[in-house]
Amino acid sequence: MTDLYPSRVSDKPMILDRKDPVIHSGPQGLHDGPLHMDQLDFYEKNGFLLLKNFFNEEEVKKMRGELDRLWDENRYNHSPEVIRELESNEIRSIFDAHRKNEMFGRLAEDPRITDMIQQLLGSDVYVHQFRINFKPGFKGKEFYWHSDFETWHVEDGMPRMRAVSCSILLTDNYSYNGPLLLIPGSHKHYISCVGETPEDNYKSSLKKQELGVPDHDSLSRLFEQGGITSATGPAGSLLLFECNVMHGSSGNISPLPRSNVFFVFNSVENTLVEPFSGLKPRPDFIANRRMKSPALQE
Amino acid sequence: MTDLYPSRVSDKPMILDRKDPVIHSGPQGLHDGPLHMDQLDFYEKNGFLLLKNFFNEEEVKKMRGELDRLWDENRYNHSPEVIRELESNEIRSIFDAHRKNEMFGRLAEDPRITDMIQQLLGSDVYVHQFRINFKPGFKGKEFYWHSDFETWHVEDGMPRMRAVSCSILLTDNYSYNGPLLLIPGSHKHYISCVGETPEDNYKSSLKKQELGVPDHDSLSRLFEQGGITSATGPAGSLLLFECNVMHGSSGNISPLPRSNVFFVFNSVENTLVEPFSGLKPRPDFIANRRMKSPALQE
Repeated sequence: MTDLYPSRVSDKPMILDRKDPVIHSGPQGLHDGPLHMDQLDFYEKNGFLLLKNFFNEEEVKKMRGELDRLWDENRYNHSPEVIRELESNEIRSIFDAHRKNEMFGRLAEDPRITDMIQQLLGSDVYVHQFRINFKPGFKGKEFYWHSDFETWHVEDGMPRMRAVSCSILLTDNYSYNGPLLLIPGSHKHYISCVGETPEDNYKSSLKKQELGVPDHDSLSRLFEQGGITSATGPAGSLLLFECNVMHGSSGNISPLPRSNVFFVFNSVENTLVEPFSGLKPRPDFIANRRMKSPALQE
Repeated sequence: MTDLYPSRVSDKPMILDRKDPVIHSGPQGLHDGPLHMDQLDFYEKNGFLLLKNFFNEEEVKKMRGELDRLWDENRYNHSPEVIRELESNEIRSIFDAHRKNEMFGRLAEDPRITDMIQQLLGSDVYVHQFRINFKPGFKGKEFYWHSDFETWHVEDGMPRMRAVSCSILLTDNYSYNGPLLLIPGSHKHYISCVGETPEDNYKSSLKKQELGVPDHDSLSRLFEQGGITSATGPAGSLLLFECNVMHGSSGNISPLPRSNVFFVFNSVENTLVEPFSGLKPRPDFIANRRMKSPALQE
């Protein structure tokens, strides 16, 4: 398969144009879903959409309860699905929670969410990745700028930009407790990063990303065009963001922890192929390879 | 001299009451200065006061020019006044700039500033510390929560809470490029920190503070009372903050650098004595010991 989005293949960074639409529905499907035209326009232009108070207090309380329970349950779990902070060794993320937990399993199939995703991706969809994230108070570490798609493309073999991430805020997000920062409009450009991906990169990159890191000049150019938006909002808010939008977050020295449920939907017409790095694929809990495209299943 | 604010002497943290007024002028001096009553009330209650656009564009431009020049001039200067980032080795702060630079020398005596400080401190004042700070874009590191007074008391021998810091923003400060975070009202409490100060602590503490670090429980209590305020504002804004207010800042992953001029005025009736740690004092460029109280000079 032709690599439309080469990255980590050169010693010079480059900004390439996006070769895929942002909203994949045709004129018919565009109106067939819960998102209004102004919301679709905003998403198309900026690459994200924040739906404040999408879940009510009761629902948030239940999800937080499950999250706290999983945190406790996995305190001494050293399986690879449980990612820990580099310095403190505390839990940072738990992957694949939807497969082992009924509530999160149902959440990944909630039609209030999947209907919106189908409207954006113009096809049936499946869960590419599912994780819960903890950013503790006082010592939550930063995530540097990155496009998720860059990694999914190079390390997992996601061919096209036809996936949407979904983040459910389980704690109030203020400007000072390390909210997600996004560069509006950045999803329309692809930063081809320098370097080469080593074998088993994910073992360290989930703690601290060193590869697929966009260069300063390209980031400055994206910033000049779009600025930075902080995804602040109350617990229960839902953030949809396009797979290629540039995002990151600062550390969190405030006493308030930040937790969220994060999952990614991919189009069934965009299932994974061999990683474009040429290396072996990352494990299934990071990038679901079990789903085959309908064409292949026939 | 009795130690009214013991810290780093026990293995248990403690919150002690403030034993000094916040505004030191008597009823007479209170009205004899540029700050209005509502500004004084705000400062008394919160421990800081942000004066937006205090300096005009032309003045900011000149100060930034000087700052850039000093940055270049000191690129290869390895004298102790030039503090560098731990990892990148880039310049983080230059101390004592007012002694070697005419513009910053004049700034430290600008009556628009000193008149306000005298109004707050109720006496003549002198410069206790003067430095310029650089927080580069993309990789500016965080400063964890601290009370300046705690360090100045323990390591420098500042007896009472009767000093004011002055920060001139030389770049626009947004919520996302690592602005100063303050806990309003925290100046009315003193967190006695655990631990002991080793000899020559300042050599590492100016890069990354490990001692005089307030504990999580005490910080949470201050936060519950006051929340967190971000000192965001345009270049040219002036922030006055009380020596004991709890403050810190997150890292800066945005492309926008942050620079400021930071100086501290102390009351001539509050000059330094022997450090309360019992150790030898820090160098003069960090804590001015040349000023003796008028009583001692006679």
